Amino acid sequence: MLPDFNDLDQFRAVLAAAPEPDGAARKAAEAHNSQLTKPPAALGRLEDLAVWYAGWRGEPRPQIAAPQVIVFAGNHGVTAQGISAFPADVTAQMVANFEAGGAAINQLARAAGARMDVVALELDRPTADFTEAPAMSAAELTAALRAGWVAVDRDADLLVVGEMGIGNTTAAAALCHALYGGEAADWTGRGTGLDDEGVARKARVVEQAVALHKPQINDGLDALAHLGGREIAAMAGAIAAARMRRIPVLLDGFICCSAAACLQAVNARALDHTLAGHQSAELAHAALLQRLGKEPLLSLGLRLGEASGAALAIPVLRGALACHSGMATFAEAGVSEG
Amino acid sequence: MLPDFNDLDQFRAVLAAAPEPDGAARKAAEAHNSQLTKPPAALGRLEDLAVWYAGWRGEPRPQIAAPQVIVFAGNHGVTAQGISAFPADVTAQMVANFEAGGAAINQLARAAGARMDVVALELDRPTADFTEAPAMSAAELTAALRAGWVAVDRDADLLVVGEMGIGNTTAAAALCHALYGGEAADWTGRGTGLDDEGVARKARVVEQAVALHKPQINDGLDALAHLGGREIAAMAGAIAAARMRRIPVLLDGFICCSAAACLQAVNARALDHTLAGHQSAELAHAALLQRLGKEPLLSLGLRLGEASGAALAIPVLRGALACHSGMATFAEAGVSEG
Repeated sequence: MLPDFNDLDQFRAVLAAAPEPDGAARKAAEAHNSQLTKPPAALGRLEDLAVWYAGWRGEPRPQIAAPQVIVFAGNHGVTAQGISAFPADVTAQMVANFEAGGAAINQLARAAGARMDVVALELDRPTADFTEAPAMSAAELTAALRAGWVAVDRDADLLVVGEMGIGNTTAAAALCHALYGGEAADWTGRGTGLDDEGVARKARVVEQAVALHKPQINDGLDALAHLGGREIAAMAGAIAAARMRRIPVLLDGFICCSAAACLQAVNARALDHTLAGHQSAELAHAALLQRLGKEPLLSLGLRLGEASGAALAIPVLRGALACHSGMATFAEAGVSEG
Repeated sequence: MLPDFNDLDQFRAVLAAAPEPDGAARKAAEAHNSQLTKPPAALGRLEDLAVWYAGWRGEPRPQIAAPQVIVFAGNHGVTAQGISAFPADVTAQMVANFEAGGAAINQLARAAGARMDVVALELDRPTADFTEAPAMSAAELTAALRAGWVAVDRDADLLVVGEMGIGNTTAAAALCHALYGGEAADWTGRGTGLDDEGVARKARVVEQAVALHKPQINDGLDALAHLGGREIAAMAGAIAAARMRRIPVLLDGFICCSAAACLQAVNARALDHTLAGHQSAELAHAALLQRLGKEPLLSLGLRLGEASGAALAIPVLRGALACHSGMATFAEAGVSEG
């Protein structure tokens, strides 16, 4: 049974009680790795990935057989401030595209052999424009966290979460500025393709919003309520649910990582079961990954969201486990150890 | 019908007549890419990869359905100089491991849905110790090039080549030092795990060998004959055969790229149908990739050879084509273009 929550303090308690990896499985995986038919450490980062994954799954020689990709979608009142290159109704249009199988993430999830779910969160009821009011009430935030929490397949052995939401790089920038300080412009990028003037306007919106709400923000969940969005909160809920079930997570780009950052701000260990799948070309993602202490598996210049960068990294992690769990040992293969 | 060759000058002529990509297919792919349901350029490098691949395949919307991995193995007389951390009989032991399915590349090829072939090249007849004599005669080099040439599946739509050969980082270092100059130590790394003293000895061997043969080396094939190995030459032959059939190639690590470098030294355009799959942790691979003008798709610290790094990159390229050829257009999906 998963623990459950009905309000934000209960969710905080869930995060505080996050389980740790299985030390014995990890040790057994390390010992197995040292016997495989290759020079010591010759598989580089793949070896670390395999041992890490084995610890979280509690098995010395696991495989990745059931990855799940979930794309959460939400709409944002802050689009009234003219901060996106695309109109807000593209969120719903893209949800229809996800459901019809036509988006990038559909192709990448299929190519990776992953189940894909799409969760649209009250698209006809955008969050409040956070330049004027908190984006969500505590009850709305709780509902969005729960939507993510319940979307995670209990039988998944790897989770990838991503998002669609016109305006949500503005929310992500505001979350980062609230959590980490610096200048608003440090966290504000082009999103789907703003020009310089658009980026400058967006940075002013971020600055104004954070100045308005900062006094009420004491932790990551306060930040999510005031400056987040439903799809961002749902990603946070899903990442937390995966932790309870020891399902490793590949984080996607800037917006996904802003959701993760809110969890980390509540519990510094909350992201230990996650890896960064891909470093996005969105301006502030590299800085955000540094704050999270995550080295991305891939860096291929994507800046799409939708879980696309993380989905592209699924085969890398699967390859690491395929080697770890499928290779012969020196003794089995009759190979000299040098 | 492929062109054919029976001696090195005929092989040089084949390289000189290497076909170019299909400009019309490439243009059609670019036009299609601009209509896909994503912000312009939001798939980053995946978009360039897809257009590049479409040009080589001569199809505006191809998929990757039949990748082939070939691992070539050879033995090296230069192991008499004590330049490897593993004994020379490990080459044959690892070939048996490849054939039994126990090596890293077996797992990675299977995970990537690739056909895998293993070609062992006269393992009981090592090349000559090139500190004393040319590694191969012209006839031996021709035979090794042909072994690679005929190993390429005519129906493959992506080729990955890799190698196994105790001592072959020494050969690769000597090839690079002969082709590019610098100091021998610049090109000499730890291979399967030499200590500092071993690396210093290996660099002296490289220096001595290149000094001995340099006067006889006028192009990349001369370098291959004097300083290469059968598996290195076979990789060069396979890369050239793929070019004739417009099969794109993912290059593996330092040794594979040293084979590619020999082709590029004969024809500067000889590698246009290739990408670097992964940047190895072997010392000189980064510098060699720079010489080849290739930006690797992955950089995960592998230093194993066997085609492992390139095989890990197959799903990245497949994902790029899955997006390119499978996504809906704005018009098809009814999504606003912003």
